[in-house]
Amino acid sequence: MSSSLKPITLWGHKTGPNSWKVAFILEELGIPYEHKFLQLAEMKEEPYEALNPNGRVPTIEDPNNDGLTIWESGACIDYILEKYDTEGKLLPKNEKTKWTARSWRDFQMSGQGPYFGQYSWFINYHPEKVQTAIDRYGNEMLRIVGVMDKQLSKTKFLAGEEITYADLMWVPYFIVAWRVPDVVWEERFPSWGRWWKEIQGREAVEKVWQGWMRLRKEVIGR
Amino acid sequence: MSSSLKPITLWGHKTGPNSWKVAFILEELGIPYEHKFLQLAEMKEEPYEALNPNGRVPTIEDPNNDGLTIWESGACIDYILEKYDTEGKLLPKNEKTKWTARSWRDFQMSGQGPYFGQYSWFINYHPEKVQTAIDRYGNEMLRIVGVMDKQLSKTKFLAGEEITYADLMWVPYFIVAWRVPDVVWEERFPSWGRWWKEIQGREAVEKVWQGWMRLRKEVIGR
Repeated sequence: MSSSLKPITLWGHKTGPNSWKVAFILEELGIPYEHKFLQLAEMKEEPYEALNPNGRVPTIEDPNNDGLTIWESGACIDYILEKYDTEGKLLPKNEKTKWTARSWRDFQMSGQGPYFGQYSWFINYHPEKVQTAIDRYGNEMLRIVGVMDKQLSKTKFLAGEEITYADLMWVPYFIVAWRVPDVVWEERFPSWGRWWKEIQGREAVEKVWQGWMRLRKEVIGR
Repeated sequence: MSSSLKPITLWGHKTGPNSWKVAFILEELGIPYEHKFLQLAEMKEEPYEALNPNGRVPTIEDPNNDGLTIWESGACIDYILEKYDTEGKLLPKNEKTKWTARSWRDFQMSGQGPYFGQYSWFINYHPEKVQTAIDRYGNEMLRIVGVMDKQLSKTKFLAGEEITYADLMWVPYFIVAWRVPDVVWEERFPSWGRWWKEIQGREAVEKVWQGWMRLRKEVIGR
Protein backbone atom coordinates (compact mmCIF):
# COMPACT_ATOMS: atom_id res chain seq x y z
CA MET A 1 0.00 0.00 0.00
CA SER A 2 2.57 2.50 1.12
CA SER A 3 4.42 2.86 -2.15
CA SER A 4 1.35 4.07 -4.03
CA LEU A 5 0.38 6.72 -1.50
CA LYS A 6 1.56 10.29 -1.27
CA PRO A 7 2.64 11.13 2.29
CA ILE A 8 -0.10 12.32 4.60
CA THR A 9 0.76 15.61 6.28
CA LEU A 10 0.57 15.39 10.06
CA TRP A 11 0.66 18.74 11.83
CA GLY A 12 2.09 18.36 15.28
CA HIS A 13 4.27 19.61 18.08
CA LYS A 14 7.77 18.46 18.92
CA THR A 15 7.21 17.89 22.63
CA GLY A 16 3.45 17.55 23.29
CA PRO A 17 1.78 14.13 23.05
CA ASN A 18 -1.25 14.48 20.80
CA SER A 19 0.16 14.41 17.28
CA TRP A 20 2.42 11.50 18.26
CA LYS A 21 -0.70 9.47 18.91
CA VAL A 22 -1.44 9.70 15.19
CA ALA A 23 2.21 9.04 14.27
CA PHE A 24 2.18 5.70 16.12
CA ILE A 25 -0.85 4.60 14.10
CA LEU A 26 0.58 5.73 10.75
CA GLU A 27 3.88 4.02 11.48
CA GLU A 28 2.21 0.76 12.54
CA LEU A 29 0.19 0.71 9.34
CA GLY A 30 3.19 1.56 7.16
CA ILE A 31 1.47 4.62 5.73
CA PRO A 32 3.86 7.32 4.50
CA TYR A 33 3.55 10.61 6.35
CA GLU A 34 5.37 13.81 6.99
CA HIS A 35 5.23 15.06 10.58
CA LYS A 36 5.43 18.86 10.44
CA PHE A 37 5.95 20.81 13.62
CA LEU A 38 4.39 24.07 14.75
CA GLN A 39 5.21 26.42 17.58
CA LEU A 40 2.33 27.02 19.99
CA ALA A 41 1.78 30.57 18.70
CA GLU A 42 1.55 29.40 15.09
CA MET A 43 -1.34 27.11 16.01
CA LYS A 44 -3.51 30.07 16.94
CA GLU A 45 -3.08 32.05 13.74
CA GLU A 46 -3.50 31.76 10.01
CA PRO A 47 -2.75 29.84 7.91
CA TYR A 48 -2.98 26.96 10.38
CA GLU A 49 -6.19 28.07 12.04
CA ALA A 50 -7.99 27.68 8.72
CA LEU A 51 -7.18 23.98 8.94
CA ASN A 52 -7.98 23.59 12.63
CA PRO A 53 -10.49 26.03 14.16
CA ASN A 54 -9.46 24.98 17.67
CA GLY A 55 -5.86 26.09 17.06
CA ARG A 56 -4.29 22.92 18.42
CA VAL A 57 -2.61 19.83 17.04
CA PRO A 58 -2.89 17.36 15.45
CA THR A 59 -4.43 18.01 12.06
CA ILE A 60 -3.93 15.79 9.05
CA GLU A 61 -4.18 16.63 5.37
CA ASP A 62 -4.50 13.76 2.93
CA PRO A 63 -3.15 14.55 -0.54
CA ASN A 64 -4.55 11.21 -1.73
CA ASN A 65 -8.07 12.47 -1.05
CA ASP A 66 -8.22 16.03 -2.40
CA GLY A 67 -6.34 17.33 0.63
CA LEU A 68 -9.13 16.32 3.01
CA THR A 69 -8.43 17.93 6.40
CA ILE A 70 -9.26 16.40 9.77
CA TRP A 71 -8.43 17.64 13.26
CA GLU A 72 -8.49 16.11 16.77
CA SER A 73 -6.30 13.05 17.20
CA GLY A 74 -9.17 10.58 17.55
CA ALA A 75 -10.88 11.80 14.40
CA CYS A 76 -7.58 11.69 12.46
CA ILE A 77 -7.03 8.11 13.59
CA ASP A 78 -10.60 7.04 12.76
CA TYR A 79 -10.15 8.40 9.24
CA ILE A 80 -6.78 6.71 8.70
CA LEU A 81 -8.17 3.38 9.88
CA GLU A 82 -11.37 3.54 7.88
CA LYS A 83 -9.57 4.61 4.74
CA TYR A 84 -6.33 2.67 4.88
CA ASP A 85 -6.62 -0.18 7.38
CA THR A 86 -8.85 -2.25 5.14
CA GLU A 87 -7.15 -5.44 6.30
CA GLY A 88 -8.12 -4.73 9.90
CA LYS A 89 -4.60 -4.70 11.28
CA LEU A 90 -5.57 -2.23 14.01
CA LEU A 91 -9.31 -1.70 13.38
CA PRO A 92 -11.13 -4.85 14.46
CA LYS A 93 -13.48 -6.46 11.98
CA ASN A 94 -15.40 -8.34 14.66
CA GLU A 95 -18.35 -6.16 15.68
CA LYS A 96 -18.10 -6.62 19.43
CA THR A 97 -14.35 -6.00 19.46
CA LYS A 98 -14.77 -2.99 17.21
CA TRP A 99 -17.11 -1.24 19.65
CA THR A 100 -15.11 -2.24 22.69
CA ALA A 101 -12.08 -0.63 21.06
CA ARG A 102 -14.16 2.48 20.36
CA SER A 103 -15.08 2.68 24.07
CA TRP A 104 -11.43 2.48 25.11
CA ARG A 105 -10.54 5.04 22.44
CA ASP A 106 -12.99 7.49 23.95
CA PHE A 107 -11.84 6.78 27.49
CA GLN A 108 -8.36 7.77 26.34
CA MET A 109 -9.71 11.00 24.81
CA SER A 110 -12.00 11.97 27.69
CA GLY A 111 -10.11 10.38 30.59
CA GLN A 112 -6.39 9.85 30.17
CA GLY A 113 -5.77 12.93 28.04
CA PRO A 114 -7.57 15.47 30.22
CA TYR A 115 -6.61 14.08 33.64
CA PHE A 116 -2.98 13.35 32.82
CA GLY A 117 -2.86 16.75 31.15
CA GLN A 118 -4.21 18.59 34.18
CA TYR A 119 -1.77 16.81 36.48
CA SER A 120 1.12 18.01 34.32
CA TRP A 121 -0.39 21.48 34.29
CA PHE A 122 -0.58 21.79 38.07
CA ILE A 123 2.91 20.33 38.50
CA ASN A 124 4.60 22.46 35.87
CA TYR A 125 2.70 25.52 34.77
CA HIS A 126 0.07 26.67 37.23
CA PRO A 127 0.87 30.11 38.68
CA GLU A 128 0.69 28.84 42.27
CA LYS A 129 1.28 25.50 43.93
CA VAL A 130 -2.09 23.94 44.70
CA GLN A 131 -1.51 20.64 46.46
CA THR A 132 -5.22 19.73 46.54
CA ALA A 133 -5.38 20.02 42.75
CA ILE A 134 -2.19 18.01 42.28
CA ASP A 135 -3.68 15.35 44.55
CA ARG A 136 -6.97 15.37 42.69
CA TYR A 137 -5.38 14.73 39.30
CA GLY A 138 -2.76 12.35 40.65
CA ASN A 139 -5.53 10.26 42.19
CA GLU A 140 -7.46 10.29 38.92
CA MET A 141 -4.36 9.12 37.04
CA LEU A 142 -3.94 6.20 39.40
CA ARG A 143 -7.66 5.41 39.18
CA ILE A 144 -7.48 5.34 35.38
CA VAL A 145 -4.43 3.10 35.26
CA GLY A 146 -6.21 0.90 37.77
CA VAL A 147 -9.17 0.56 35.39
CA MET A 148 -6.78 -0.48 32.62
CA ASP A 149 -4.98 -2.88 34.93
CA LYS A 150 -8.21 -4.64 35.86
CA GLN A 151 -9.12 -5.08 32.20
CA LEU A 152 -5.62 -6.22 31.32
CA SER A 153 -5.76 -8.86 34.04
CA LYS A 154 -8.55 -10.45 31.96
CA THR A 155 -7.48 -9.78 28.37
CA LYS A 156 -4.10 -9.37 26.72
CA PHE A 157 -4.99 -6.01 25.18
CA LEU A 158 -7.67 -3.47 26.02
CA ALA A 159 -10.29 -4.73 23.57
CA GLY A 160 -9.41 -8.43 23.67
CA GLU A 161 -6.62 -10.80 22.71
CA GLU A 162 -5.33 -8.76 19.77
CA ILE A 163 -3.87 -5.30 19.73
CA THR A 164 -6.07 -2.54 18.31
CA TYR A 165 -5.62 1.16 17.64
CA ALA A 166 -7.16 1.81 21.05
CA ASP A 167 -4.10 0.38 22.83
CA LEU A 168 -1.79 2.58 20.80
CA MET A 169 -3.77 5.72 21.56
CA TRP A 170 -2.83 5.39 25.23
CA VAL A 171 0.91 5.31 24.50
CA PRO A 172 2.00 8.97 24.23
CA TYR A 173 0.76 10.10 27.64
CA PHE A 174 2.43 7.11 29.29
CA ILE A 175 5.68 8.17 27.68
CA VAL A 176 5.73 11.82 28.68
CA ALA A 177 3.25 12.33 31.50
CA TRP A 178 4.60 13.18 34.92
CA ARG A 179 4.00 10.28 37.23
CA VAL A 180 2.64 10.40 40.74
CA PRO A 181 5.69 10.11 43.01
CA ASP A 182 6.19 7.22 45.40
CA VAL A 183 4.12 4.85 43.32
CA VAL A 184 5.88 2.24 41.18
CA TRP A 185 3.24 1.74 38.53
CA GLU A 186 4.56 -1.60 37.36
CA GLU A 187 4.27 -2.91 40.93
CA ARG A 188 0.89 -1.52 41.77
CA PHE A 189 -0.51 -2.37 38.33
CA PRO A 190 1.22 -5.57 37.18
CA SER A 191 -1.16 -6.37 34.31
CA TRP A 192 -0.80 -2.84 33.03
CA GLY A 193 2.98 -3.27 33.36
CA ARG A 194 2.88 -6.47 31.33
CA TRP A 195 0.85 -4.67 28.61
CA TRP A 196 3.11 -1.61 28.67
CA LYS A 197 6.20 -3.77 28.21
CA GLU A 198 4.55 -5.61 25.35
CA ILE A 199 3.62 -2.33 23.64
CA GLN A 200 7.12 -0.92 24.07
CA GLY A 201 8.56 -3.95 22.33
CA ARG A 202 6.81 -3.18 19.05
CA GLU A 203 9.13 -2.06 16.29
CA ALA A 204 6.92 0.76 15.02
CA VAL A 205 6.36 2.05 18.56
CA GLU A 206 10.07 2.06 19.28
CA LYS A 207 10.88 3.88 16.05
CA VAL A 208 8.38 6.70 16.59
CA TRP A 209 9.22 6.94 20.29
CA GLN A 210 12.94 7.37 19.62
CA GLY A 211 12.31 10.03 16.99
CA TRP A 212 10.07 11.91 19.41
CA MET A 213 12.61 11.70 22.25
CA ARG A 214 15.35 13.06 19.99
CA LEU A 215 13.19 16.11 19.26
CA ARG A 216 12.21 16.57 22.91
CA LYS A 217 15.82 16.47 23.93
CA GLU A 218 16.63 19.08 21.30
CA VAL A 219 13.86 21.37 22.57
CA ILE A 220 13.62 20.84 26.33
CA GLY A 221 16.81 18.98 27.09
CA ARG A 222 15.20 15.81 28.47
CA MET B 1 -37.89 1.86 12.12
CA SER B 2 -38.83 2.50 15.72
CA SER B 3 -41.80 0.12 15.90
CA SER B 4 -39.73 -2.92 15.00
CA LEU B 5 -36.96 -2.28 17.53
CA LYS B 6 -36.80 -3.34 21.14
CA PRO B 7 -35.84 -0.40 23.38
CA ILE B 8 -32.13 0.19 23.81
CA THR B 9 -31.10 0.36 27.46
CA LEU B 10 -29.29 3.59 28.27
CA TRP B 11 -27.57 3.58 31.66
CA GLY B 12 -27.31 7.09 33.00
CA HIS B 13 -27.50 9.52 35.86
CA LYS B 14 -30.40 11.80 36.72
CA THR B 15 -28.40 14.99 37.07
CA GLY B 16 -25.04 14.59 35.25
CA PRO B 17 -24.76 15.44 31.55
CA ASN B 18 -23.14 12.49 29.83
CA SER B 19 -25.96 9.99 29.38
CA TRP B 20 -28.28 12.78 28.26
CA LYS B 21 -25.95 13.33 25.31
CA VAL B 22 -26.97 9.89 24.06
CA ALA B 23 -30.64 10.49 24.91
CA PHE B 24 -30.76 13.55 22.63
CA ILE B 25 -29.46 11.45 19.74
CA LEU B 26 -31.85 8.54 20.36
CA GLU B 27 -34.81 10.90 20.64
CA GLU B 28 -33.89 12.78 17.46
CA LEU B 29 -33.67 9.50 15.55
CA GLY B 30 -36.92 8.19 16.99
CA ILE B 31 -35.22 5.08 18.38
CA PRO B 32 -36.98 3.54 21.37
CA TYR B 33 -34.91 3.51 24.53
CA GLU B 34 -35.19 3.15 28.24
CA HIS B 35 -33.07 5.54 30.28
CA LYS B 36 -32.17 3.78 33.52
CA PHE B 37 -30.57 5.73 36.33
CA LEU B 38 -27.78 4.75 38.69
CA GLN B 39 -26.48 6.32 41.87
CA LEU B 40 -22.77 7.21 41.75
CA ALA B 41 -21.85 4.35 44.12
CA GLU B 42 -23.66 1.79 41.97
CA MET B 43 -21.50 2.73 39.00
CA LYS B 44 -18.37 1.55 40.78
CA GLU B 45 -19.59 -1.93 41.71
CA GLU B 46 -21.02 -5.06 40.18
CA PRO B 47 -23.18 -5.76 38.30
CA TYR B 48 -22.72 -2.43 36.50
CA GLU B 49 -18.92 -2.48 36.45
CA ALA B 50 -19.05 -5.63 34.33
CA LEU B 51 -20.75 -3.52 31.66
CA ASN B 52 -18.51 -0.48 32.03
CA PRO B 53 -14.98 -1.05 33.39
CA ASN B 54 -14.57 2.68 34.00
CA GLY B 55 -17.54 2.74 36.37
CA ARG B 56 -19.15 5.78 34.83
CA VAL B 57 -22.13 6.51 32.61
CA PRO B 58 -23.36 6.20 29.93
CA THR B 59 -23.40 2.61 28.79
CA ILE B 60 -25.86 1.23 26.27
CA GLU B 61 -27.08 -2.33 25.79
CA ASP B 62 -28.77 -3.16 22.52
CA PRO B 63 -31.25 -6.06 22.78
CA ASN B 64 -31.59 -5.96 18.99
CA ASN B 65 -27.95 -6.99 18.65
CA ASP B 66 -27.39 -9.78 21.18
CA GLY B 67 -27.19 -7.26 24.01
CA LEU B 68 -24.07 -5.64 22.59
CA THR B 69 -22.64 -3.31 25.25
CA ILE B 70 -20.87 -0.04 24.57
CA TRP B 71 -19.61 2.59 27.02
CA GLU B 72 -18.41 6.23 26.71
CA SER B 73 -20.96 8.62 25.27
CA GLY B 74 -19.12 9.17 21.99
CA ALA B 75 -18.77 5.45 21.31
CA CYS B 76 -22.46 4.86 22.16
CA ILE B 77 -23.46 7.59 19.74
CA ASP B 78 -21.17 6.32 16.96
CA TYR B 79 -22.75 2.89 17.28
CA ILE B 80 -26.32 4.19 17.24
CA LEU B 81 -25.61 6.27 14.15
CA GLU B 82 -23.78 3.58 12.24
CA LYS B 83 -26.41 0.98 13.05
CA TYR B 84 -29.63 2.95 12.93
CA ASP B 85 -29.11 6.26 11.12
CA THR B 86 -28.86 4.65 7.73
CA GLU B 87 -30.72 7.58 6.15
CA GLY B 88 -28.05 9.99 7.36
CA LYS B 89 -30.37 12.20 9.39
CA LEU B 90 -27.56 13.07 11.83
CA LEU B 91 -24.57 11.19 10.38
CA PRO B 92 -23.46 12.99 7.20
CA LYS B 93 -23.12 10.93 4.05
CA ASN B 94 -20.83 13.46 2.39
CA GLU B 95 -17.24 12.46 3.18
CA LYS B 96 -15.89 15.89 3.99
CA THR B 97 -18.83 16.75 6.23
CA LYS B 98 -18.61 13.37 7.91
CA TRP B 99 -15.02 13.93 9.02
CA THR B 100 -15.61 17.54 9.99
CA ALA B 101 -18.42 16.33 12.25
CA ARG B 102 -16.06 13.73 13.71
CA SER B 103 -13.55 16.47 14.54
CA TRP B 104 -16.20 18.52 16.35
CA ARG B 105 -17.40 15.38 18.12
CA ASP B 106 -13.94 14.82 19.51
CA PHE B 107 -13.48 18.46 20.46
CA GLN B 108 -16.65 18.08 22.54
CA MET B 109 -15.25 14.93 24.20
CA SER B 110 -11.73 16.24 24.82
CA GLY B 111 -12.46 19.96 25.18
CA GLN B 112 -15.93 20.95 26.31
CA GLY B 113 -16.52 17.95 28.57
CA PRO B 114 -13.26 18.09 30.53
CA TYR B 115 -12.91 21.87 30.79
CA PHE B 116 -16.54 22.60 31.58
CA GLY B 117 -16.42 19.70 34.01
CA GLN B 118 -13.34 21.00 35.84
CA TYR B 119 -14.86 24.47 36.10
CA SER B 120 -17.93 22.98 37.81
CA TRP B 121 -15.64 20.93 40.04
CA PHE B 122 -13.66 23.91 41.30
CA ILE B 123 -16.83 25.99 41.79
CA ASN B 124 -18.82 23.31 43.58
CA TYR B 125 -16.81 20.44 44.98
CA HIS B 126 -13.14 21.21 45.46
CA PRO B 127 -12.13 21.11 49.16
CA GLU B 128 -10.71 24.65 49.03
CA LYS B 129 -11.44 27.74 46.98
CA VAL B 130 -8.72 28.09 44.34
CA GLN B 131 -9.40 31.22 42.34
CA THR B 132 -6.52 30.60 39.91
CA ALA B 133 -8.02 27.22 38.98
CA ILE B 134 -11.52 28.69 38.62
CA ASP B 135 -10.03 31.36 36.37
CA ARG B 136 -8.12 28.80 34.33
CA TYR B 137 -11.16 26.72 33.53
CA GLY B 138 -13.46 29.71 33.12
CA ASN B 139 -11.05 31.13 30.54
CA GLU B 140 -10.92 27.78 28.74
CA MET B 141 -14.72 27.64 28.62
CA LEU B 142 -14.86 31.07 27.04
CA ARG B 143 -12.08 30.15 24.62
CA ILE B 144 -13.97 27.04 23.55
CA VAL B 145 -17.26 28.86 23.02
CA GLY B 146 -15.25 31.43 21.07
CA VAL B 147 -13.97 28.71 18.76
CA MET B 148 -17.53 27.55 18.16
CA ASP B 149 -18.71 31.12 17.64
CA LYS B 150 -16.11 31.74 14.97
CA GLN B 151 -17.12 28.58 13.11
CA LEU B 152 -20.81 29.42 13.49
CA SER B 153 -20.23 32.86 11.99
CA LYS B 154 -19.32 30.98 8.78
CA THR B 155 -21.65 27.97 8.78
CA LYS B 156 -25.14 27.43 10.18
CA PHE B 157 -24.09 24.35 12.15
CA LEU B 158 -20.70 23.10 13.33
CA ALA B 159 -19.99 20.85 10.36
CA GLY B 160 -21.78 22.85 7.68
CA GLU B 161 -25.26 23.94 6.67
CA GLU B 162 -27.09 20.93 8.10
CA ILE B 163 -27.29 19.77 11.67
CA THR B 164 -25.27 16.68 12.57
CA TYR B 165 -24.88 14.57 15.70
CA ALA B 166 -21.83 16.67 16.55
CA ASP B 167 -24.01 19.74 17.25
CA LEU B 168 -26.23 17.72 19.57
CA MET B 169 -23.30 16.34 21.52
CA TRP B 170 -22.50 19.86 22.74
CA VAL B 171 -26.00 20.39 24.16
CA PRO B 172 -25.94 18.83 27.67
CA TYR B 173 -23.02 20.83 29.04
CA PHE B 174 -24.55 24.06 27.77
CA ILE B 175 -27.71 23.21 29.66
CA VAL B 176 -26.20 22.41 33.05
CA ALA B 177 -22.68 23.81 33.18
CA TRP B 178 -21.99 26.69 35.50
CA ARG B 179 -21.29 29.79 33.47
CA VAL B 180 -18.52 32.27 33.97
CA PRO B 181 -20.14 35.22 35.78
CA ASP B 182 -20.32 38.70 34.27
CA VAL B 183 -20.23 37.40 30.71
CA VAL B 184 -23.46 37.31 28.70
CA TRP B 185 -22.60 34.51 26.31
CA GLU B 186 -25.24 35.43 23.75
CA GLU B 187 -23.77 38.94 23.56
CA ARG B 188 -20.11 38.00 23.44
CA PHE B 189 -20.76 35.07 21.08
CA PRO B 190 -23.69 36.07 18.85
CA SER B 191 -23.23 33.31 16.27
CA TRP B 192 -23.08 30.74 19.03
CA GLY B 193 -26.23 32.35 20.46
CA ARG B 194 -28.02 32.05 17.14
CA TRP B 195 -27.04 28.36 16.94
CA TRP B 196 -28.00 27.70 20.55
CA LYS B 197 -31.45 29.21 20.01
CA GLU B 198 -31.91 27.12 16.89
CA ILE B 199 -30.93 23.93 18.72
CA GLN B 200 -33.25 24.71 21.62
CA GLY B 201 -36.16 25.05 19.22
CA ARG B 202 -35.97 21.41 18.12
CA GLU B 203 -38.84 19.27 19.30
CA ALA B 204 -36.70 16.27 20.31
CA VAL B 205 -34.25 18.49 22.16
CA GLU B 206 -37.03 20.20 24.08
CA LYS B 207 -38.64 16.91 25.03
CA VAL B 208 -35.46 15.34 26.42
CA TRP B 209 -34.39 18.59 28.08
CA GLN B 210 -37.70 18.94 29.94
CA GLY B 211 -37.58 15.34 31.13
CA TRP B 212 -34.05 15.85 32.38
CA MET B 213 -34.93 19.10 34.20
CA ARG B 214 -37.86 17.39 35.94
CA LEU B 215 -35.48 14.75 37.31
CA ARG B 216 -32.85 17.30 38.32
CA LYS B 217 -35.47 19.32 40.18
CA GLU B 218 -36.56 16.17 41.97
CA VAL B 219 -32.98 15.36 43.01
CA ILE B 220 -31.22 18.69 43.55
CA GLY B 221 -34.11 21.13 43.64
CA ARG B 222 -33.06 23.25 40.64
